Amino acid sequence: MPHARVHNFSISLDGFATGEPQSLEAPFGHAGERLHEWMFATRFWDESGSAGVDDSFAQRNTVGIGAEIMGANKFGPPEWQDDPEWKGWWGDNPPFHSPTFVLTHRPRPPLAMEGGTTYHFLDASPAEALAAAFEAADGQDVRIGGGATVVRDFVAAGLVDFMHLVQVPIVLGRGSRVWDGLEAVEDDYGIEAVSAPSGVTHLTFTRKSAG
Amino acid sequence: MPHARVHNFSISLDGFATGEPQSLEAPFGHAGERLHEWMFATRFWDESGSAGVDDSFAQRNTVGIGAEIMGANKFGPPEWQDDPEWKGWWGDNPPFHSPTFVLTHRPRPPLAMEGGTTYHFLDASPAEALAAAFEAADGQDVRIGGGATVVRDFVAAGLVDFMHLVQVPIVLGRGSRVWDGLEAVEDDYGIEAVSAPSGVTHLTFTRKSAG
Ligand SMILES: NC(=O)c1ccc[n+]([C@@H]2O[C@H](COP(=O)([O-])OP(=O)(O)OC[C@H]3O[C@@H](n4cnc5c(N)ncnc54)[C@H](OP(=O)(O)O)[C@@H]3O)[C@@H](O)[C@H]2O)c1
Ligand SMILES: NC(=O)c1ccc[n+]([C@@H]2O[C@H](COP(=O)([O-])OP(=O)(O)OC[C@H]3O[C@@H](n4cnc5c(N)ncnc54)[C@H](OP(=O)(O)O)[C@@H]3O)[C@@H](O)[C@H]2O)c1
Repeated sequence: MPHARVHNFSISLDGFATGEPQSLEAPFGHAGERLHEWMFATRFWDESGSAGVDDSFAQRNTVGIGAEIMGANKFGPPEWQDDPEWKGWWGDNPPFHSPTFVLTHRPRPPLAMEGGTTYHFLDASPAEALAAAFEAADGQDVRIGGGATVVRDFVAAGLVDFMHLVQVPIVLGRGSRVWDGLEAVEDDYGIEAVSAPSGVTHLTFTRKSAG
Repeated sequence: MPHARVHNFSISLDGFATGEPQSLEAPFGHAGERLHEWMFATRFWDESGSAGVDDSFAQRNTVGIGAEIMGANKFGPPEWQDDPEWKGWWGDNPPFHSPTFVLTHRPRPPLAMEGGTTYHFLDASPAEALAAAFEAADGQDVRIGGGATVVRDFVAAGLVDFMHLVQVPIVLGRGSRVWDGLEAVEDDYGIEAVSAPSGVTHLTFTRKSAG
């Protein structure tokens, strides 16, 4: 059975997956690139990078994925919905290479990009969005791509089978926090932690009932 | 030079060092004993326990410590100040075996217990309390014993030289959170993480300027 998976989702020690304010100049606000430096240093990101534990986790991001779901705030800076020309942060050939569902209260028509990515804009419940993404994924898994609002909404709705968080040793203090509303998530998931020489700690959540 | 140190301070994934509500029946609220099971399984706590990585960290709690500082909510349940007979959770022979400073806005006279513990009740700033504790510690280090309010106040005031947190894989959702107000703490501390086979992750914070 296809699964819904979260990968390479980076958080600070205090659980923020982005800083603030989010803007065109600073997509992660005051967090800057600090949440993702661990990934930039892997072979997954750059072929001169390291192939150790961080890379092993990072590489799983794409394997077996047939569609992605993301939130409006991952797709663009505040007010992108007012700009009919906005096509996401990732240029003409986005790294998704699959149907990509953008959850927004202001949907627009689908947008076909190069390399197999088509953006579909959806105003729907998490369960409805996931059903649409599974159908588009054609038997493969669906990646829940973030941000924190979307990840926690999907976990809270019981829709996530596997989640990989990467805890970076910084305290952001403010932003969008992944833990809010997830009290007792350990009842539903087997949780493992492994710290890496880079300083980050990989946390995996495997749904107990997952087949 | 003597140091101010935090040891064995257990937090949930979302940073709570206790659940809620705190009461005589449930000192850690809905967290129960879950934050401390890792420690109960060590030789530090019980001589039939394990002597692995968790124990190595746990044992450092007492070495070279000459005094402790704790908050009012660690010393007793809400309203303990109304009970002239309240002598702390730890019985006649408390495990501190040294001068122990209880920060409270309703101080009372000192209380000498068995085994070398004397409780001193102090309404003072963190810096003043630490000065008093260093004096009482007579050249040894001072342990900042918690709870979260006291730990974060002392860290925010720049008074903590070393901090050992133990992240337990549960999400509490509510309680007293250690991270609040500590944005950018990584500027002042070298941070290391090591996950243990028990499932917890030990986080150490070593002050960059510490001698
Ligand atoms: N740390 C990481 O690894 C990572 C990964 C991905 C993203 N990010 C970052 O996280 C930030 C975004 O996170 P975020 O928590 O602010 O927001 P988000 O999860 O990206 O998006 C939330 C927004 O999506 C829309 N939305 C969500 N669910 C919906 C639904 N069921 N129906 C219709 N619309 C829905 C709403 O926007 P509207 O009401 O405006 O339409 C909502 O405010 C960005 O800075 C991004 O770069 C970080
Ligand atoms: N997870 C762990 O490893 C760990 C370790 C220790 C404790 N704990 C738990 O943490 C909980 C307590 O934490 P908490 O954050 O609620 O409270 P806390 O830090 O123990 O105490 C805070 C209280 O201490 C008093 N206080 C603090 N600073 C003061 C100052 N400078 N001057 C005068 N009074 C001052 C104030 O009480 P008043 O205004 O009422 O006087 C304040 O509300 C308990 O459940 C305890 O068992 C957990």
